[in-house]
Amino acid sequence: PLVAQPPAPANVWAPLTVEEIASIQKWLDEPALGLNLTRGDQATLSDNHIFLIDAYQPPKAEALAYIENPSSTPRPTKYARVTIHHGTVPVIKDYLVGPLPISSKSNMTELTEVYHRDDIPYHARGAMVAAELTPLVQKIMVPLADVTEELFGASARGLPNDTLLAGAGGPWSFDGTFRRAWLSWRRNVAGPWLHPVNFFQYIDMSGTDPAQWKLLKIVYNHQAFDGVEDFLEAFHNGTLKRLPERPDQRKDPSWSTRKRPDPDYRRDLDHLPGPRSVSFAGLRFRVDRELQYVSWLGWGLYLGFNRDMGLSLWDIRFRGERLIYELAPQEAIAQYAGNDPMQSTTAWLDRFFGMGGSVRDMMPGYDCPHEAVYLPATTHSGIGIIKRDRAICIFEQDSGRPITRHTGYSKDEFGAVKGYVLTIRSISTVGNYDYCFDYMFQVDGTIEVRLSASGYLQGGYWEPKQEGYGAPIRETSMGSLHDHVINYKVDLDMVGTKNSLLQTTTATEEVEHPWIEEDWGSKVIQQKISRTYIENEDDALLKYPHNFQGGYAIVNKEETNTWGTVRGYAIHPGYSPVYNTVVGSKRLLNNANWARYNLAVSRRKETEPTSSSMWNQHLPGAPVVDFHKFFDSENITQEDLVAWVNIGMHHLPQAEDVPNTRTNLAASSFFLTPLNYFDTDVSIESINAVILTAP
Amino acid sequence: PLVAQPPAPANVWAPLTVEEIASIQKWLDEPALGLNLTRGDQATLSDNHIFLIDAYQPPKAEALAYIENPSSTPRPTKYARVTIHHGTVPVIKDYLVGPLPISSKSNMTELTEVYHRDDIPYHARGAMVAAELTPLVQKIMVPLADVTEELFGASARGLPNDTLLAGAGGPWSFDGTFRRAWLSWRRNVAGPWLHPVNFFQYIDMSGTDPAQWKLLKIVYNHQAFDGVEDFLEAFHNGTLKRLPERPDQRKDPSWSTRKRPDPDYRRDLDHLPGPRSVSFAGLRFRVDRELQYVSWLGWGLYLGFNRDMGLSLWDIRFRGERLIYELAPQEAIAQYAGNDPMQSTTAWLDRFFGMGGSVRDMMPGYDCPHEAVYLPATTHSGIGIIKRDRAICIFEQDSGRPITRHTGYSKDEFGAVKGYVLTIRSISTVGNYDYCFDYMFQVDGTIEVRLSASGYLQGGYWEPKQEGYGAPIRETSMGSLHDHVINYKVDLDMVGTKNSLLQTTTATEEVEHPWIEEDWGSKVIQQKISRTYIENEDDALLKYPHNFQGGYAIVNKEETNTWGTVRGYAIHPGYSPVYNTVVGSKRLLNNANWARYNLAVSRRKETEPTSSSMWNQHLPGAPVVDFHKFFDSENITQEDLVAWVNIGMHHLPQAEDVPNTRTNLAASSFFLTPLNYFDTDVSIESINAVILTAP
Ligand SMILES: [Ca+2]
Ligand SMILES: [Ca+2]
Ligand SMILES: [Ca+2]
Ligand SMILES: [Ca+2]
Ligand SMILES: [Cu+2]
Ligand SMILES: [Cu+2]
Repeated sequence: PLVAQPPAPANVWAPLTVEEIASIQKWLDEPALGLNLTRGDQATLSDNHIFLIDAYQPPKAEALAYIENPSSTPRPTKYARVTIHHGTVPVIKDYLVGPLPISSKSNMTELTEVYHRDDIPYHARGAMVAAELTPLVQKIMVPLADVTEELFGASARGLPNDTLLAGAGGPWSFDGTFRRAWLSWRRNVAGPWLHPVNFFQYIDMSGTDPAQWKLLKIVYNHQAFDGVEDFLEAFHNGTLKRLPERPDQRKDPSWSTRKRPDPDYRRDLDHLPGPRSVSFAGLRFRVDRELQYVSWLGWGLYLGFNRDMGLSLWDIRFRGERLIYELAPQEAIAQYAGNDPMQSTTAWLDRFFGMGGSVRDMMPGYDCPHEAVYLPATTHSGIGIIKRDRAICIFEQDSGRPITRHTGYSKDEFGAVKGYVLTIRSISTVGNYDYCFDYMFQVDGTIEVRLSASGYLQGGYWEPKQEGYGAPIRETSMGSLHDHVINYKVDLDMVGTKNSLLQTTTATEEVEHPWIEEDWGSKVIQQKISRTYIENEDDALLKYPHNFQGGYAIVNKEETNTWGTVRGYAIHPGYSPVYNTVVGSKRLLNNANWARYNLAVSRRKETEPTSSSMWNQHLPGAPVVDFHKFFDSENITQEDLVAWVNIGMHHLPQAEDVPNTRTNLAASSFFLTPLNYFDTDVSIESINAVILTAP
Repeated sequence: PLVAQPPAPANVWAPLTVEEIASIQKWLDEPALGLNLTRGDQATLSDNHIFLIDAYQPPKAEALAYIENPSSTPRPTKYARVTIHHGTVPVIKDYLVGPLPISSKSNMTELTEVYHRDDIPYHARGAMVAAELTPLVQKIMVPLADVTEELFGASARGLPNDTLLAGAGGPWSFDGTFRRAWLSWRRNVAGPWLHPVNFFQYIDMSGTDPAQWKLLKIVYNHQAFDGVEDFLEAFHNGTLKRLPERPDQRKDPSWSTRKRPDPDYRRDLDHLPGPRSVSFAGLRFRVDRELQYVSWLGWGLYLGFNRDMGLSLWDIRFRGERLIYELAPQEAIAQYAGNDPMQSTTAWLDRFFGMGGSVRDMMPGYDCPHEAVYLPATTHSGIGIIKRDRAICIFEQDSGRPITRHTGYSKDEFGAVKGYVLTIRSISTVGNYDYCFDYMFQVDGTIEVRLSASGYLQGGYWEPKQEGYGAPIRETSMGSLHDHVINYKVDLDMVGTKNSLLQTTTATEEVEHPWIEEDWGSKVIQQKISRTYIENEDDALLKYPHNFQGGYAIVNKEETNTWGTVRGYAIHPGYSPVYNTVVGSKRLLNNANWARYNLAVSRRKETEPTSSSMWNQHLPGAPVVDFHKFFDSENITQEDLVAWVNIGMHHLPQAEDVPNTRTNLAASSFFLTPLNYFDTDVSIESINAVILTAP
């Protein structure tokens, strides 16, 4: 693509470079710091090691000052966020390290002001290496191998050729005082999530010595046992109530692969390549690869990327005006239901696994159209630096419909403007699930933020008493009912940072219109709009109104368009505008309270950079970031506001989720769209348009 | 495109050909029939004339028998529906004329069994020719010409160079006993709907003699007058409270054209053509132009087209199985609000104007992508036959995202399937408004039915006391608040016609799971699905559940997929799933009761072919088709069911609606999507797919 011209010659939100990460790593190893670090790939749980080195975003005031006037303003001082697992204590600490580049002025200070508890418990730590569990698995599964072979035709001995594979549920703690997980055993085949054998173990991984870890419980066919011996005894003495025979489990498991089930079956003309989008005169978007800056038809923005949530967008401008300072996903929950101990206790917060760290290289031509431009992303985790060359893609498409059109009769009222869309995409695969994050920029100033999901269901064992918890997808496999809710930070800045939250509602009114008289009566029943400002954060935890009669917008009360209306952007629901169904479950007690609403608006704080943390997953009772704490009765009139916007999906699984969920229905979105921000629709200025003389 | 192979060699739902229409017209003119017809273009209101000749759909049983076995089953007997305005009575009658082609066996019988009142009042008749009003306009506006020139800088004398233009509100009657309309006067410029001068006249057009028509009232600046004299007197004696000066009204009105406001302004790279979709190996969809049959990657369907609602789809099959017998829009309402006599009394039912008759030629490359194939449509109205060569377009596009994908680690679980979409489109321009009807077929068996709107707002006069009824779009113009609701007939047939209505809801439950114990407590709070069948039509007037926790599906209780689940299709909300806000207004009392719900399901009847009629517009108190009458307590268990599905938009106008509303936000849709209809996702069989070895 053509080279872009960013407003400033630096991306102050850019991820750290490999060199920066390496220099920080080296600096942290200096004995003078006394960190006593072991290399991540050699560290045991009782060693100190670096879990994460990531960019830390500069204060907004500094960043704005710089990008407004880059030639005469110093760049904001650059800092890294460093997470160290202090296995010797054990505790986790987050640090700010800087200024960067590392110099004699650099130091490290503990990062505490963005968190809501004094410590980060070691039991909530991330990135369990599968190998950590191997000794325990050998201890508890080898004695059961003959029995699991008889029951399931498979076994696990902690070896590469194991025919059973463990998947864990979560959370593993409530408040950090323990680390315990339900394991669900699955056949070790492609798409293992769809092959649970209905055998569960509750294991205790508390403390830092894996030799002390132990099995607490076994559940098989709704019977609980306190350990291997109890289970074996019941098996051998005939008191174990066995599951019915499962002949399907021994069959060819290729139904859970992505292979074409019948290679000879061919739909008419499917052998031809489908239509392909081509920019015959060259791409119309510009990219600065170095700075990770993108521009297109009046739009411009910087890209950020981190381990926790992957792609983020910064300083989004349209036609020269900043609309959004930051647009970034925050967290993605999935809360399950079922009649087994895993599904009924599981609620995932996928930031724990790292939406950014889980990005894989996209498949060109399939994950993005052929013309897409790919950008790399680098993340650091305890065991090293991961660089993905195709972490992000950018492409323009014809939406297939005009953005506006009219066939009229008067001169100059007959014509159409092409509706093009620029998409910026990143796809994260967190275990079974694939999240496709799309930011779709449109020629009228609208952005659709869309998440499409694919990948494998987290399956359960199908039996009639699972009725109500999902649907069978095979003789004895099911997809388990769950809710997805995903939170985005949307820091809209409408003509500056001083903004207000406008609530619009519509309702029926009865009014007297005396001139109408006998035919229609003087009583008119019609709609009317009410517009009010929500002035206090406590009133800004919001749901969309009944029948979507009204909505919410961020506006600047002191800036009006030429017709006297306050300028702003609406947050408009798109596909599947839902929030979390279940409130009050212990496993999600207070660690994802944002999911109770469609959206919420709070006063922007440097101390509230994000609505979640990777450790929230395992701390439902005492989260590191407690979203409700943002809402402390502050006034939000003409302040710098942030909207926390949710999308989601009630995922009632069905046979068509196999092998993978379809992105057309597993989709949710919201729009950020001008609401009297302009004087007219600005897409009318497009050159890719036609005006015809009425025939 | 390549030639298609329809299942039967005839399209039994096809519109009439020009020859058929002409032969019917000729036959109706035969004196023996005693119809005493005057040619439509010469008829006065007190003459008898043909208003409409259109195809009438065959009974479903006959059509099914034929398409199942076309070689050995006779084609269903073909009939035309003929609407005659019996101006001599006056009354309107609908007739069935056939068999076709016209022969000695053809006859005409009155079509009454599909209507809910004994007569079709002449006052509800369609297609007022503007010329009918000219004498009245001259009578009431010529004496006011000097005054309107002073007040508005414009006048109307019933001449081609009139600078004022009248737009009428509607309905014009309540029960058929009168025909009266509020006229809103507008400047006669491009986009006149945005230039109301705030001058209204209530006129009486009752009876068949235009000489008797008269002015009943004038409203100007909230002052009502009983006639021209009263108004003139107030004007001259100085008691008329005038509107403030409106300098903007005299300015260049080009802001309401589609011209680029600043020809020199150019967004970066906008001078380049945008990306274009190209099928390098040829189009993958097939079209039989003669039969109006389309097929694509396992999909196949026939097209229908009529004057009332335009494009309809018939016998939609996928992979050899019929999914839908009929998919057709039924009606589109727009109910307004305001502080003036027109907006506060107007509710449009656009079938009155003819969604099919209002189709204009699409703009190639703008209304549809460059590769689109266009099909013609012919409609007959009283003044002749209209043929549009580009009434319908068909095109395939890359959706830009895979329909499914996963980046895994095991063999054969790493890959993606391209997400292609075939769109069939028709655009109707009803005066100010452009309706873009899209049917989007997807590779997994899903159809998205989407309506996007563009065109001009119906504007009002902006003044501070209009607050709540819309938003200013210029100094003294506003867009007026209104609701759109559009109804579709969806005759799903799930493995035959015997189907049931499945209601799914989810709610929170508390259950005891004793094995969980101390860490999480034995009390589990989680979701659970309830599935029930709605057995009676009276319970099938439906709204989507709160937070979309559940939904509705048409299923066959006696047909299960391999995993034992009933096979069916879900009706899944898409963009903007809303129903009408206002209930109980006299102007929409009983003529659009379907708009009170998100959807409704009734037993299919040949006597209930459609949820509305063109005459419903003017008969809110006594509609020709009364939707609620379909719901007469019949059992709907394993019967042939029809779903009446709504989409809509609460249109709160904003500055960006000028010059024309944007199709990205003015969009609403629903999905028809397999729900355990298949054993797995069938899109996995696509050849346009990739499987990779995990790196
Ligand atoms: Ca606060
Ligand atoms: Ca802000
Ligand atoms: Ca009925
Ligand atoms: Ca049916
Ligand atoms: Cu899901
Ligand atoms: Cu509208």
